[in-house]
Parts: sequence; structure tokens; C-alpha cells
Amino acid sequence: MVFQDKFHLRIPGPTPVPPRVQQAMAKPMIGHRSNIASKLIQDCTNQLKPIFGTSLQPVILAGSGTSALEAAVVNTLSEGDEAIVVSTGAFGDRFAKIIQKYGFNLHVLDIPWGKACEPDNLSVFIQKYPQAKAVFLTYCETSTGVLNPIPELAQTVHQHSDALVVVDGVSCIGAVPCQMDEWNIDIMVTGSQKALMLPPGLAIVAASERAWKTIESNDQPSFYLDLDSYRKKLEQQATTPFTPAVSLLYGLKEALSMIEEEGYEQVFARHERLRKLTRAGIRALGLTLMVENRHASPTVTSIVTSHEKWDVESFRKNMQANGFIVAGGQQHLKGEIFRIGHMGYCDDWDIVAVLAAIEFTLHQMGVPVELGAATKAAQEVMLDV
Amino acid sequence: MVFQDKFHLRIPGPTPVPPRVQQAMAKPMIGHRSNIASKLIQDCTNQLKPIFGTSLQPVILAGSGTSALEAAVVNTLSEGDEAIVVSTGAFGDRFAKIIQKYGFNLHVLDIPWGKACEPDNLSVFIQKYPQAKAVFLTYCETSTGVLNPIPELAQTVHQHSDALVVVDGVSCIGAVPCQMDEWNIDIMVTGSQKALMLPPGLAIVAASERAWKTIESNDQPSFYLDLDSYRKKLEQQATTPFTPAVSLLYGLKEALSMIEEEGYEQVFARHERLRKLTRAGIRALGLTLMVENRHASPTVTSIVTSHEKWDVESFRKNMQANGFIVAGGQQHLKGEIFRIGHMGYCDDWDIVAVLAAIEFTLHQMGVPVELGAATKAAQEVMLDV
Repeated sequence: MVFQDKFHLRIPGPTPVPPRVQQAMAKPMIGHRSNIASKLIQDCTNQLKPIFGTSLQPVILAGSGTSALEAAVVNTLSEGDEAIVVSTGAFGDRFAKIIQKYGFNLHVLDIPWGKACEPDNLSVFIQKYPQAKAVFLTYCETSTGVLNPIPELAQTVHQHSDALVVVDGVSCIGAVPCQMDEWNIDIMVTGSQKALMLPPGLAIVAASERAWKTIESNDQPSFYLDLDSYRKKLEQQATTPFTPAVSLLYGLKEALSMIEEEGYEQVFARHERLRKLTRAGIRALGLTLMVENRHASPTVTSIVTSHEKWDVESFRKNMQANGFIVAGGQQHLKGEIFRIGHMGYCDDWDIVAVLAAIEFTLHQMGVPVELGAATKAAQEVMLDV
Repeated sequence: MVFQDKFHLRIPGPTPVPPRVQQAMAKPMIGHRSNIASKLIQDCTNQLKPIFGTSLQPVILAGSGTSALEAAVVNTLSEGDEAIVVSTGAFGDRFAKIIQKYGFNLHVLDIPWGKACEPDNLSVFIQKYPQAKAVFLTYCETSTGVLNPIPELAQTVHQHSDALVVVDGVSCIGAVPCQMDEWNIDIMVTGSQKALMLPPGLAIVAASERAWKTIESNDQPSFYLDLDSYRKKLEQQATTPFTPAVSLLYGLKEALSMIEEEGYEQVFARHERLRKLTRAGIRALGLTLMVENRHASPTVTSIVTSHEKWDVESFRKNMQANGFIVAGGQQHLKGEIFRIGHMGYCDDWDIVAVLAAIEFTLHQMGVPVELGAATKAAQEVMLDV
């Protein structure tokens, strides 16, 4: 790799930041209680509504995605409450860990990594725990690239229970459809560093009226993550209870404008196309996709390598030497898979490039792959779509 | 093309500007007569010496490459002087036009576009005009992608004449070897927007002791392009006679540091590799290279399309719609060729990308090319080199 800053970041977040967003974030600092800051917060909050498919204003925290997950837990559950976590991977597990940390009564529906949770499966499980106060789901499970069928799962919960439906949308919101109001999602959270094309540092929580009632009446033990204080400050003074990350908000406004300009449907269609391109290229090299087509996320693709003769961690190092950064597996999948992120500021040619790098790197390692094969397969999809 | 700012600029200048350079240019403005500005000018001038292969300080003008060409003409010739221009394309012609504008006695050795000037050819021509005060040569002829054999041509001039050897190095200096002192080049000029990885706006003139003597004694009619005033201000006060382009100088210092860090020999080897990759890919698609291998520039490659059934200007428009900007032909080659720039902030994967875009775009246009063929050919060169 010749130029230290000319790498291709193809991990499932943080994702590349567009120059427009970089420029917006380079604006001079302003007072965080100024009118300009309030206008910025209002603009961002309003522009976020269609991204979540909600008529209510989401709140924005200075924090990572995990701060939003924790906020969702600590604002909806109280001592003695029961909660269900549907875990399809590392980020489902994270919800469980947070709930355990606070000592709430946890019931985990464990789905094998690489599979999605089917509504029937959830239906049986949920009926075992009629007292559950909330069900925690993951929209895109970043660790595997599974996109869980959230509308159907939410419907299943509501059929059998009064539990709130809380969804981790960190690695897909902004890249896939989300209709919170229509789907009856109570809480949906995301982070800035994925499909929203920003650096890490912002967490966003959108909630339904029903969820806000629970949040309001909840005497949660957290000060910084008290969502009710975020909502009140936003509604009453168009500001945040604690210092907002001003530059990131400038960037958020610009990124949301880019999404508006491209068009929501066009953004979703692009991510769907990136998914197809990636999978076609990987298949053309004879590699093994982890997730079946109907549950594969438009934002991240996992490739299983545990049965290959080559070492995936050496492969990733060689990819990096060639200027391409792909992700490895998490937890027990470390050394067993690699993952390609394709969300946010990513176009067809970025996928052609990473596929060319994969076939080239494998060839360098003596793996029998045909040079040009993955590129060709992706180009054929580009012509088709 | 989805993102307006995600285009691939593959013309022979302006070339992409590295983030490091962009950041350097974003520094706060300073007074142009301050000590900081003087230090910056000194640093740039000293760091330019190895790029030109000279022990003398080059001078830096705020201007385009043409301002440097004109400075070279107007500071070396006086009324009644004879001059020889070796023209191998549009930029050789530009030297001729400047000389004609000033009314000096001009003798043009016209070489067919796409060919280099051979030393024997020049040897015969130069002996016809023993009074010539200067011989104007082009190192890389941007309009065709020919790299003229400058060391041999300079030697030929010196064998038969006392004429100054003046070379336009705009589209290659910084990407190919240049040893002004060793090769006995009297004046070498370049611009900022090519291999030096900067926006347009700086012109650089390096001159030999012999050339400076001529310049000093020359009573040229230009005020802004009076090179003697640039040299004197630089030597006496470490500044410029007129306001320097401060931000571009910040960028120049950073770009020169990048070249130093990569290593001069490594930079030249990279450009040589980019030339090979490009030509291998173009050949694999059955397209026609304009310049024979031994005279093909490491910075720009021309492809002849006049005999093809498809229209090259439509092709360029389609390439642009796909996010790739390649150059067309100049003057009589308009509609007959296209050109790929591969200098400066450009690596192997940039060439793989533009080749993939070329095969894809031609395929879209119904031209029978094999998808993946150019990519594969380039990858094979990458493995070989």
C-alpha cells in the first residue's frame, strides 16, 4: 500500500465519511446553547423522522451505539421486570449483557449465528413469558450480516403480549426501510458511524408514544442516559440536557441532506444492489456465503472460511497490505469468517474494487481463484439491475 | 453516478489531491511577507531541488503551467533571436505560439502526434539553424502520452550548438526521473496540478547557472514573468516579488514530503507500474494504444479509437455517467482518441477501477468486450512486477 490515507475501508462501521460531510464538520465551533445550535438540533431531529418512519422527534445523544442500547434498556425496565432478548449474534448478546448488568429478569431466545429469528420461533418463546415488559430485537446483526424480519417479529410480539418492542438498528438504519409507526416499533436506536456516513459519536433513539409513557414513568438509575430529559430539553428549548457533539451534528445534517437528495427509496435500492453485487462476486470465487439470500443484510456480508485451506486472519492482513480493510469474525467466529461492509458512502465500483482485491489477494496466497472472475460477476449484476 | 463527489478523476491533470494535502491547504491564512511565509517558501524551494535534479533553487510563480512556458520564452529570447521548437503535440505547439506572439524567429521541427522526437531527427534539424538561441522541448507531451528522450535530445543540442535547452516538464515532473544538472538542461518548468498532486495555480521554473546568466542579461518585456526578480527576491529576502499563493505552498510542502517519504525511486517505479497496468488492460480489451512502448509516458496513456465502430465522445459521456472521467483528444485528435491520466495520487487499484469501468461501459454500449478481461490483465501485471 503506497499511500497511507488511500485505504479502502470496507468494515461494517465505521464507514467512509463523504467529503461533503467532512467539510460540514470543519465549520467553526459554535456555542452549544446558541440559537444556531438549537436550529441545528431541530433540523437534524426533523430530518431523522423519515429515516425512522416516525412522526415523533428522535433524541440525539453524544455517545456510541452501545449508549443507545443501554438507554433503551434502562429507560424501559425497572427492578423486578422481565425482559426477552432475541439474540442472533454478538449484538443481541450485548443487549443481554446490559440487562444482566442491571439485574433485570432476562429470558434469551438464542438463534444460531448466521440465521435469522423466524416469527414462529419467537411466537412460541414469547408465550412462555407473558409478563415480559419488553422484547429486544436486532434489525441487522452486524456480527453475521443477518437482517432479521423486524415487521413480522414486531407483529408477533404484539399478537401475544403487551411488551414493548425495542430494536437495535445500529448497522442498518438509513440503508434499509424503517417504518416505526406503521410496524408498531416502540424504540429503535442507531449510531452515526454506519449507514449515516458519519464518524462515531452520535447515538439516536426514536420512540413511540407508548414507549415515551413508559420512559416518563420509569425511575431509571442513569443520569446521562435519562431519555426523558433529552425529550423535555428538545421539546421545551430545542436543545440537549448535556453538551451536544456540535461538529457531528453539522455532519449529520449534511449526511441527511445527501440521503434526501438521493431519495430514500433510491438509497435502499442502492444498498440492495450492493448486497447482490457482493454476493455474486463472492459466489464467483467459489467462496461460502454465511447467510441465506432471504435474510442477507444489504449492509454487511459474511463469508465463511473455516473449511478453507487458507487462514482468514492472514488473508485479512494481506488484504490490508493491499490497501483493503475487511472485518474478521467476532467472539467464536474469530478466525472462521470475514465480513465486508457495504453501507453508507459506498457505490457499485467500491464493491468491484473490494472484489478485485479479494481475488487478487487470494491468488497471491496461492488459492486457486480465477483473476477477474468476481469483478465480472459483479459487473454482470450491474448490467442486470 | 450516485454521489456527486465520488467521481474518479483520471484525466492527465488536474489530478486528485490527497487528503493530507487538502488538510495542509486548509491551514489559517498568514501574511505573505511574514517569517512563516518566508520559511515556507524556502522549504518548498529546497524540497523541489531533488525533484528537478538541480543544486540551484527553482522559483515558484502563482500561475498556470503556461505562465511558466511563457516565462521560459520571454526570459531567454530577445528581439531578433532565433529559436527552435520541437513539437510532438499540442504543448509543443503552445511553445511555438508563445514565441510567435512575441515575434521571435521560429523554426519548428514538427513530429507526427503520437511519435517521440528521435535524437537523429533533431541532430539534422539543429544543424540547419546554428544561430538558435534556445531549443524548446517537451518532456511528456500531454496530448498524446509520449515521453520524449530528454537526456539524449539535450545531449544532441549541446553537441551541435550553444543554444539553451528549455524543457516543458509540466505533465511528468515528480513522476519520472529528472536530472537537470547531470543532463545539462538549462530550464525545466512544471505546474502544480499534475504529478505534484496539487490544485492548479503554481508554476515552477528551475534554471541552470548558464540560463540564469541569459535571464539576467535579458531585457524582457514582461513584468509579472520577470524570472530575475523572482530569483533575487528569493535569494535576498526568501520571498517572491508578487503575492505568493500561500495555501498552495502549504500544499506543495506536504506533497513534496509525501514524495520524500515514499522515496523518489519508488515514486518513479510506481508510475512505471501504472503505465504497464494501464497498457496491459487496454491491450486485453483489444483496444489500440497510440504510443509505442519505448516512448509511452508513465503519466498518461492515449487510446486510438478513430477506427472503432463506437463514438469515443459518447463513450466518455457514458464513462462520466458511471463516475469515471477520462480525457478526450485535443485539436485534430478530438473524437479520435481518449486519454487516461495516471500520475500523482494514483495507485494500482485506481487503474484496476478505471479498466473495470472501461470494459463495463463498452459492454453497456454493445461493444464486444469480455467483462473482467482488463481487470485480469492488470492484476497479472501486479503479480509480475
